[in-house]
Amino acid sequence: MRATQIVLSSRPKGIPTSDTFRFEEIELPNLKEGEVLVQPSFISVDPYMRGRMNDIESYIPSFQLNAPIEGGIMGKVMESKSDTLKAGELVLGTLPWATKSIGKASNLKKIIPSSISPSYYLGILGMPGLTAYFGLLDIGKPKAGETVVVSGAAGAVGMVVGQIAKIKGCRVVGLAGSDEKVQILKEQFGYDEVINYKTAGRNLFELIKAACPNNIDVYFDNVGAEITDSVIFNINAKARIIVCGQIALYNSSQISRGLRLLPFILTKSALIQGFIVHDYKGRFPEGMQQLTTWLQEGKLHFKETVIKGFERLPEAFLGLFSGQNVGKMLVQVD
Amino acid sequence: MRATQIVLSSRPKGIPTSDTFRFEEIELPNLKEGEVLVQPSFISVDPYMRGRMNDIESYIPSFQLNAPIEGGIMGKVMESKSDTLKAGELVLGTLPWATKSIGKASNLKKIIPSSISPSYYLGILGMPGLTAYFGLLDIGKPKAGETVVVSGAAGAVGMVVGQIAKIKGCRVVGLAGSDEKVQILKEQFGYDEVINYKTAGRNLFELIKAACPNNIDVYFDNVGAEITDSVIFNINAKARIIVCGQIALYNSSQISRGLRLLPFILTKSALIQGFIVHDYKGRFPEGMQQLTTWLQEGKLHFKETVIKGFERLPEAFLGLFSGQNVGKMLVQVD
Repeated sequence: MRATQIVLSSRPKGIPTSDTFRFEEIELPNLKEGEVLVQPSFISVDPYMRGRMNDIESYIPSFQLNAPIEGGIMGKVMESKSDTLKAGELVLGTLPWATKSIGKASNLKKIIPSSISPSYYLGILGMPGLTAYFGLLDIGKPKAGETVVVSGAAGAVGMVVGQIAKIKGCRVVGLAGSDEKVQILKEQFGYDEVINYKTAGRNLFELIKAACPNNIDVYFDNVGAEITDSVIFNINAKARIIVCGQIALYNSSQISRGLRLLPFILTKSALIQGFIVHDYKGRFPEGMQQLTTWLQEGKLHFKETVIKGFERLPEAFLGLFSGQNVGKMLVQVD
Repeated sequence: MRATQIVLSSRPKGIPTSDTFRFEEIELPNLKEGEVLVQPSFISVDPYMRGRMNDIESYIPSFQLNAPIEGGIMGKVMESKSDTLKAGELVLGTLPWATKSIGKASNLKKIIPSSISPSYYLGILGMPGLTAYFGLLDIGKPKAGETVVVSGAAGAVGMVVGQIAKIKGCRVVGLAGSDEKVQILKEQFGYDEVINYKTAGRNLFELIKAACPNNIDVYFDNVGAEITDSVIFNINAKARIIVCGQIALYNSSQISRGLRLLPFILTKSALIQGFIVHDYKGRFPEGMQQLTTWLQEGKLHFKETVIKGFERLPEAFLGLFSGQNVGKMLVQVD
């Protein structure tokens, strides 16, 4: 059985380029006991994957050079040597970027058909949704009437954070990178205010101040750098800052410099917590259940940016860093 | 009754100078019901007071221009119109920098004579000791075998932090500003390693790395800036960083720039908590009791740097920022 896979051909310095990825034709071996052959329907591209392209120690191992890139995939079982998964069933798992691949059934999660779009298990009911849920509620602990600010508000995580904050009775202010995103978040996702940080320029601090007349109690940070400075210098005492992503800095080849935040954090008795959703693995069922309920009740909505064609995976991935997506960025394969 | 007081004559830009302080002769009014006349024995100078000299909103109000500076004082009741305090009794409270002053008895705490030096109620059994106790144990949550790093290790807070961390079974590494302090901390206060950051220069990161072979689990920060950068880039996953002081930056007249920490905090799932001891007011009795017990058991030791003479208060205060003190800096008045 032949397949095409995408390997990491070199470690990018700065923004990944065409040299970062290499397409390879491979011959898949025969299935062993307990394995299944999966054909991806949707492949997830996520900002955190940029970190795995570097050769540095982190919470998740680096991608190996000349080995396939791997990530979240929702696909269909084509052949099975497992008792638990049958051909034709839909599964979710971490698999290589390949047109077909072999996985252990025990590492895959079966998707039970329902009214929910299966691709949502890579988005609002997958890592991004759970990241929003646990990061906001467990670390941010928003109280009704408080002000919650979200950077990367139109991304897969940010879009969900804002909606959950609204469910909890907060004033929600987003930061996003285009007027189109601003409009979508306000009209379709219930954000009270959204600021286009790209057109704000040097006025960003003042625009945030104006949008948050009672200052900021919770900041859910997906972006980092100057945007984050402008938010943090508007916080209230005892603010909670969830550091979930730093996409503005993922392509930096050295440690960036910026304003020193700690003296202000001290003055405000504020909390900063670096947050990785895997720390909440034991509570994923709780999160999934609540998110599903809110979805079915119509209290949560979601959006996907779907790019068609396996060969466009590198392009879709790079698009994350220039903000091409509204909501979850996915590549549709079949 | 005449007295001398020290007022804030101008708000300092950068390091306070002789223009910052003005000595004034005043005539005290007669005591009213419930008031006492206090003559200070020891006046505390503390780094946080620098923040009160600025005209910016913080967790504690700014000093008023042309009004007396106030701070922690341990003194003797000279006259009393209170039922609860008698002349001759020792008291503790927040009072103006003055050779005599009038306070409400209800705002003062009586010191019961014991084997403990009364000045300790401004140090190890006062704000500095409680700051060490709650900051380290409640936020840092050190576990036996973990590595705890303390900046400003020879200061009134740092000296206590290191000893409590040793009581809890940790490896304790300090950062201090002179070879004399290094020696005192290692020989008299049980620090496992102490690094002189002033002579370390560009090797600080590597020296910390070498002193912390298992990396750092808890960082108790009294100093900030480059010292803190060098510590933070040596932390373990799930490290806890207590931001208690930023003395290196208190005299900055604008927001300093430095390395951006948040991307690394994210990678390490680390916690940063700005910490103000007043948030623990309800638990002060618990902290006092435990610290007193450890002192009496000989498990805790303390040091004071005592400068004699009311007129030397400004000099003593400024000495904090050039590291003149080992342990608690006090001015002895009578």
